[in-house]
Amino acid sequence: MIKVGIIGATGYAGAEIARLIYSHPQAEIVWYGSRSYIDERFSSVYGNFFNIVDEKCLDDNMDELAEKVDVIFTATPQGLCAGLVNDEILSKVKIIDLSADFRIKDVSVYEKWYGIEHKSPQYIEEAVYGLCEINRDKIKGARLIANPGCYTTCSILTAYPLIKEKLIDPKTLIVDALSGTSGAGRGAKTPNLFCEVNESVKPYGVTNHRHTPEIEEQLGYAAGEEFTINFTPHLIPMNRGILATEYASLMKKSDGSLPTASDIRAAYEKYYKDEKFIRLLPDGVYPETKWVETSNFVDIGFKIDERTGRVIMMGAIDNLVKGAAGQAVQNMNIMFGFEESMGLDFVPAFP
Amino acid sequence: MIKVGIIGATGYAGAEIARLIYSHPQAEIVWYGSRSYIDERFSSVYGNFFNIVDEKCLDDNMDELAEKVDVIFTATPQGLCAGLVNDEILSKVKIIDLSADFRIKDVSVYEKWYGIEHKSPQYIEEAVYGLCEINRDKIKGARLIANPGCYTTCSILTAYPLIKEKLIDPKTLIVDALSGTSGAGRGAKTPNLFCEVNESVKPYGVTNHRHTPEIEEQLGYAAGEEFTINFTPHLIPMNRGILATEYASLMKKSDGSLPTASDIRAAYEKYYKDEKFIRLLPDGVYPETKWVETSNFVDIGFKIDERTGRVIMMGAIDNLVKGAAGQAVQNMNIMFGFEESMGLDFVPAFP
Amino acid sequence: MIKVGIIGATGYAGAEIARLIYSHPQAEIVWYGSRSYIDERFSSVYGNFFNIVDEKCLDDNMDELAEKVDVIFTATPQGLCAGLVNDEILSKVKIIDLSADFRIKDVSVYEKWYGIEHKSPQYIEEAVYGLCEINRDKIKGARLIANPGCYTTCSILTAYPLIKEKLIDPKTLIVDALSGTSGAGRGAKTPNLFCEVNESVKPYGVTNHRHTPEIEEQLGYAAGEEFTINFTPHLIPMNRGILATEYASLMKKSDGSLPTASDIRAAYEKYYKDEKFIRLLPDGVYPETKWVETSNFVDIGFKIDERTGRVIMMGAIDNLVKGAAGQAVQNMNIMFGFEESMGLDFVPAFP
Amino acid sequence: MIKVGIIGATGYAGAEIARLIYSHPQAEIVWYGSRSYIDERFSSVYGNFFNIVDEKCLDDNMDELAEKVDVIFTATPQGLCAGLVNDEILSKVKIIDLSADFRIKDVSVYEKWYGIEHKSPQYIEEAVYGLCEINRDKIKGARLIANPGCYTTCSILTAYPLIKEKLIDPKTLIVDALSGTSGAGRGAKTPNLFCEVNESVKPYGVTNHRHTPEIEEQLGYAAGEEFTINFTPHLIPMNRGILATEYASLMKKSDGSLPTASDIRAAYEKYYKDEKFIRLLPDGVYPETKWVETSNFVDIGFKIDERTGRVIMMGAIDNLVKGAAGQAVQNMNIMFGFEESMGLDFVPAFP
Repeated sequence: MIKVGIIGATGYAGAEIARLIYSHPQAEIVWYGSRSYIDERFSSVYGNFFNIVDEKCLDDNMDELAEKVDVIFTATPQGLCAGLVNDEILSKVKIIDLSADFRIKDVSVYEKWYGIEHKSPQYIEEAVYGLCEINRDKIKGARLIANPGCYTTCSILTAYPLIKEKLIDPKTLIVDALSGTSGAGRGAKTPNLFCEVNESVKPYGVTNHRHTPEIEEQLGYAAGEEFTINFTPHLIPMNRGILATEYASLMKKSDGSLPTASDIRAAYEKYYKDEKFIRLLPDGVYPETKWVETSNFVDIGFKIDERTGRVIMMGAIDNLVKGAAGQAVQNMNIMFGFEESMGLDFVPAFP
Repeated sequence: MIKVGIIGATGYAGAEIARLIYSHPQAEIVWYGSRSYIDERFSSVYGNFFNIVDEKCLDDNMDELAEKVDVIFTATPQGLCAGLVNDEILSKVKIIDLSADFRIKDVSVYEKWYGIEHKSPQYIEEAVYGLCEINRDKIKGARLIANPGCYTTCSILTAYPLIKEKLIDPKTLIVDALSGTSGAGRGAKTPNLFCEVNESVKPYGVTNHRHTPEIEEQLGYAAGEEFTINFTPHLIPMNRGILATEYASLMKKSDGSLPTASDIRAAYEKYYKDEKFIRLLPDGVYPETKWVETSNFVDIGFKIDERTGRVIMMGAIDNLVKGAAGQAVQNMNIMFGFEESMGLDFVPAFP
Repeated sequence: MIKVGIIGATGYAGAEIARLIYSHPQAEIVWYGSRSYIDERFSSVYGNFFNIVDEKCLDDNMDELAEKVDVIFTATPQGLCAGLVNDEILSKVKIIDLSADFRIKDVSVYEKWYGIEHKSPQYIEEAVYGLCEINRDKIKGARLIANPGCYTTCSILTAYPLIKEKLIDPKTLIVDALSGTSGAGRGAKTPNLFCEVNESVKPYGVTNHRHTPEIEEQLGYAAGEEFTINFTPHLIPMNRGILATEYASLMKKSDGSLPTASDIRAAYEKYYKDEKFIRLLPDGVYPETKWVETSNFVDIGFKIDERTGRVIMMGAIDNLVKGAAGQAVQNMNIMFGFEESMGLDFVPAFP
Repeated sequence: MIKVGIIGATGYAGAEIARLIYSHPQAEIVWYGSRSYIDERFSSVYGNFFNIVDEKCLDDNMDELAEKVDVIFTATPQGLCAGLVNDEILSKVKIIDLSADFRIKDVSVYEKWYGIEHKSPQYIEEAVYGLCEINRDKIKGARLIANPGCYTTCSILTAYPLIKEKLIDPKTLIVDALSGTSGAGRGAKTPNLFCEVNESVKPYGVTNHRHTPEIEEQLGYAAGEEFTINFTPHLIPMNRGILATEYASLMKKSDGSLPTASDIRAAYEKYYKDEKFIRLLPDGVYPETKWVETSNFVDIGFKIDERTGRVIMMGAIDNLVKGAAGQAVQNMNIMFGFEESMGLDFVPAFP
């Protein structure tokens, strides 16, 4: 049984880690860190934990935490983890950072898109991008995991095999994505009020959402070359879920013909056939966020349009699970040698 | 490991049983019965089960089922279970009926409120009303369980201790209840379309909802006398959850004074102190359905109004879990000697 | 064409006044007061007004406003209107106050329930409670209107005729009410975030909601005696709408029998037959908030329960229209001698 | 005052026509046609019309209707209007058809995408595609209007000026669109139940939605050449509203440089500057469906991405108003010489 500490336990992602770890047979939470609610019961902030978790929230003391736990999850705003981590801490404890601090290898890109100075760029190289299905081997030995963003997890996994296999032209890639409102966090802001979100939909961060360079970097590794994409997120009136609809032009095969549905399917199966959490849907079936809600699954479907020579790829995840807390636990499982699906092997809740 | 069969597996309650049993360490489903989807994959009806359950749906053959399984859940319309059950079946298999067929002891009351003839009244006496926290001992040895209704589970448990302890006058009891739309089932009816339900709320079944006599009967046992109540359900725009707000006049104590908040709390604790699934909330905290969603919990709060001499009792459940499938699994656990919370011990999902 | 000023134009109720007045043939808004958004375009706060209203928001200067307009709507927190009004202002301009400042005749009741000192109790007596269907005659000549609360408008109108005609026992009255989230205002508070409200329902203000004494006072006038009630509001996941479900014991008629459905209907018709905005529904039809959305209608239905000797009364309004801005405009129409339904005569929007 | 008949009055679009015409000063409905509800009161189907419209629903008798009214709106499934219309009817009455029967000039394209035989192809040439802002002059004298589809109205108007002005390469156009559920109609189908739609989002009709050829045809006229596009609709959990997010590569200007934001804005203004119902949003502001809800507005915003050389165009409408009933009324206004905005000039309802 390993000991777990959460910094930022009272955000939606932090609380979701607490929910998942409660059902994990080999891990237990011993530190609910929340600067905003110090000394308040965690269950007074999240009533779903009433009579389940009695602990009070503690401060974000990473030094003390490093003595007490085996792994720290930082579910905090950008900059916090980078500002706290140091050699001593990393020598004592594994860190899974759910912020963007260590996701982007080029620190100047990070600083440009996030608008803040990086406080510990010396750890960026070491940090492993924790997209489990792609970087499993590197995750095993890592001390510091950069847990991927929610949009990025969905966007990358949906296109990865087709880019890797050069079935699509990466420069034509367009990612149009929709997210439930829990992705906006629990901060009290007028645009996230019920009456503002309900019965409406809006694009935001058009051409400049911070997940853009993260998607470009990771898919760039797959393509073997750098390229830019368009990524447009939208806020829709639901709690959980991300759907990415992605468009790209098909690349001609060596015989001059365009890839067929079979070619596309074969590429997906090559990379995902044995992946428990990636479900490649049958032809004609497209992902719906409700089928993955509360779970760690990624559902993927696709359709070729022969008229335009493009393929439409569609992926769905639960933004708080595979897009945050679930993938963080999956990373923890890999790092500690547990069964990778431990604590994550259940049926999505519907309706 | 016991074997489980579901008749009516493709309704919302049936599918919820399948979801819960999947995580149950001592039970497995071997029969997904669904007359409407025979020979179709269960996971083609409920995409959340894709790659998890590969079985196809089977017919509602209770005789064959009785040979193959240890327990049958009937999550079917009223009348079906009563029409199929017989001595031989009951001698071979336990039955947990989620319909109303065996909930009401007086067959004439059943036939009047449900408007159908009861096909096997000879089993009504034997059937145990499966409200686990109240009838645990009888459930242990039962062959046939009448799993309580969703509104009734919430309404009864919220008022039971105060009626049992004669702190409130049962004749003054008014139950005003709100339900998410999954309670209306998965049938394709215009009033349950998204656009009809969303952004609206409506009362229905005013004075004549079928759960009324069930509440009256069970609370009548607690009171030691018969009485009538007002029960008004409302449909609200959410998927899961029931909230019951109940009003009753306080009864004077032997010294002529009215019960205090301490008296009320003591009564709840007397009956529920050791109940894992009933959470008595602190003073000033009232239940919210989001805190119990996807779980088997019943959250209960109360407030005395000294101005009017009434107590307001409030209870919340997830209608598909404690109000249907979860309680059914809890009944199964009791009947088979498993830990009562087996497969049901997890944190409610929020948001 | 009269000139209108709004103080608090950027709250939901204030903006709804602006929406309604735009379609009013005899009134125009010349002052969009909003302390929070001074010098910002009104349409930058409420995008629905883009290209329709070009004015910028102004300060809450009631003295200046009194020179410029014929009527001021104060859609502001409690205490603001009472703190600004004075003899000179009242001599120049009509005021329709949407706050609670002048709704309650007994200043000590106001100060107790609202927890603030009343700054101009000398105008309470003069102020007319602007429940149009009940106080129409007094409204005509008034200088200062206390526009009723949203819950109170719905609760009072639903029960008024039966209390006035002594068909029900007022001391048994219980009002269980449900409100959409716009009633909570546009302030940025965590409990009103989309993810907190969506997929949930909760009671609040149990036994101590501030609309309680307002309902009691007004219905007390109808009853000819003081009495206390239970009023329990609930927050439900929709934008607009209030539904009140009210319970009361029927009073015996002079011949010893209980009132019939015909008696109840006759009482409603006696008071509401000619009321354009009150729609008494046919037997067996109960109000649904969607049928009144965006409109000034009050839909009322009822059902007698002979088993319990109670009548269940149900009323529905749009909280922002008949519960706030619409009734305010209706009051304006009465005060200025316009057709009472002017600017309010349209079909509710559905779905 | 002209007389109006509706065939298909009890669908969502039909009822929306009734709502709008009620507030129209120069038109009145004299025929509520609905085969499904013959002899039932229209207001018993749509409670929002209670006490407002007393008429009963009538049959779809177009011959009789032609004698009685000045204009017929057919808000019916594909094929019905084409099956009923004939020379005599067209000589007596104007027809505004909200179905797709006369939208597509090439009957073989219609028959291929809709899968039905066209019963009166002889009127296709005469029919005017009623996209008011583009075809206003032709609409004036038309007898038969093909009222555009909801997705198409939004998709076309959002891209039209940029294609017309050759600022974008039409072959690169991708339209990713989101619709509220009223677009799916009022038919009782399981996928449109509240619990199936709520808390989920899904793509559908991928590469083969029927609005695709309609968009291609109309934008092809603007481009002066034929081309194909990708159009992907998604169903999202809200009642009303369509948002189209459109992507296209910028075309080099004659000097070899790419168009700037000023160029894009100038193109939009060239075509839409005087259009009351098209609102070109300021730089950095993107459309949200809530700002157009219940209204006839089209809100349009855009953003150039210099990194990818694309422009992202975004448009929002209310699918039942500008996407159906509102545009139909706008067409009626043009045909009968009324002020084009008559009956449509009001502030969108929010929240």
